[in-house]
Amino acid sequence: MIDVYFDFISPYGYLGVMQVEKLARKYGHDVNWHAMLLGVSVMNVMGLKPLLDTPLKGEYAIKDVARLASLYDLPFKMPEHGMPPPVPSARAFYWVKDNFPEKTSDFVCAVYNAQWRDGLDISQVSILMDIATSLGLEGQALQVALDGDVLRNRLREAVGHSLKRGVFGSPTFVVGDEMIWGCDRLWMLEHWLQKGNWSPLEENKD
Amino acid sequence: MIDVYFDFISPYGYLGVMQVEKLARKYGHDVNWHAMLLGVSVMNVMGLKPLLDTPLKGEYAIKDVARLASLYDLPFKMPEHGMPPPVPSARAFYWVKDNFPEKTSDFVCAVYNAQWRDGLDISQVSILMDIATSLGLEGQALQVALDGDVLRNRLREAVGHSLKRGVFGSPTFVVGDEMIWGCDRLWMLEHWLQKGNWSPLEENKD
Repeated sequence: MIDVYFDFISPYGYLGVMQVEKLARKYGHDVNWHAMLLGVSVMNVMGLKPLLDTPLKGEYAIKDVARLASLYDLPFKMPEHGMPPPVPSARAFYWVKDNFPEKTSDFVCAVYNAQWRDGLDISQVSILMDIATSLGLEGQALQVALDGDVLRNRLREAVGHSLKRGVFGSPTFVVGDEMIWGCDRLWMLEHWLQKGNWSPLEENKD
Repeated sequence: MIDVYFDFISPYGYLGVMQVEKLARKYGHDVNWHAMLLGVSVMNVMGLKPLLDTPLKGEYAIKDVARLASLYDLPFKMPEHGMPPPVPSARAFYWVKDNFPEKTSDFVCAVYNAQWRDGLDISQVSILMDIATSLGLEGQALQVALDGDVLRNRLREAVGHSLKRGVFGSPTFVVGDEMIWGCDRLWMLEHWLQKGNWSPLEENKD
């Protein structure tokens, strides 16, 4: 089992999530998905600024995400009007995970694609309803659930759980006691899945 | 020509610097070394905390550096008494670069090895003098130079130049208009040196 933590507003999360399931299956693992909130880990707990608002690093990240998308052969579009508020899509995720677990993976990919491939605003409830409907779920039921305390508490608990585990970035992969952060570290995850240790890479052996 | 920016207090800088020259030579490039100061870019310009003082991320980085060192087959030791002040070694670097350019690369590697392989404190002038002497330079002359205005101004200018170029982290590699940050992105640098574009990686092609 590979735990995968992500925030839908994270473009690096998109690039990692789109690739990790195939990798997990190659080594006989399932993925356990966890939505988290970068706003809580980065700003409240770590005391940092949002990535794209950080001088120098923000500009770098915008270019970096685009070239990684190209290297990974994934379509990618930067949103024209900034990052969407992250809470509605994260709550919707737990509605799917808790009630229709078999649709979780498809929902994660559909929401990420809507935001980062298609340039839609996934903070809009209507967009989330459309995605749910496209997966055979009741969009109306999702809309009702999004207003309730159940999902509010569920997300709050999930964010607390991710912080307790030490997760701070998106995407983060956890296998056993190993935590691996970053869409550009899938090679490292694969090394661990294959070998179960950090023995030198072939090209670095003396 | 590959411009390589680094701070001697950066363990990720050590892991990158130890590998980049071989890679550069493979593609017929020289390395132009530039010491910078993370304290200025990270704290003053970006408004962030030092990596190891950042909750969650600091603990992660300590584990992450150790496993990367293992994967890269590089000896590595975390300093027992925290990070050394970065200024003396950075000034010493410019003394070597400006006066004995042919020794620059050896000096960079020797200082990084002293700190991160051997666990010495490279903020001690005596350590820097020993390193200079071991390379056939006048340790005494370095000691005198470290107290002067020339190196103070030289480092200040160099840090300004790195910031103007957008460099914020260590190590950072620049080739033409492409800036690549991180010891774990040498594969990306190699891709660019080889192809000159961001065409999809073989394993990601449909």
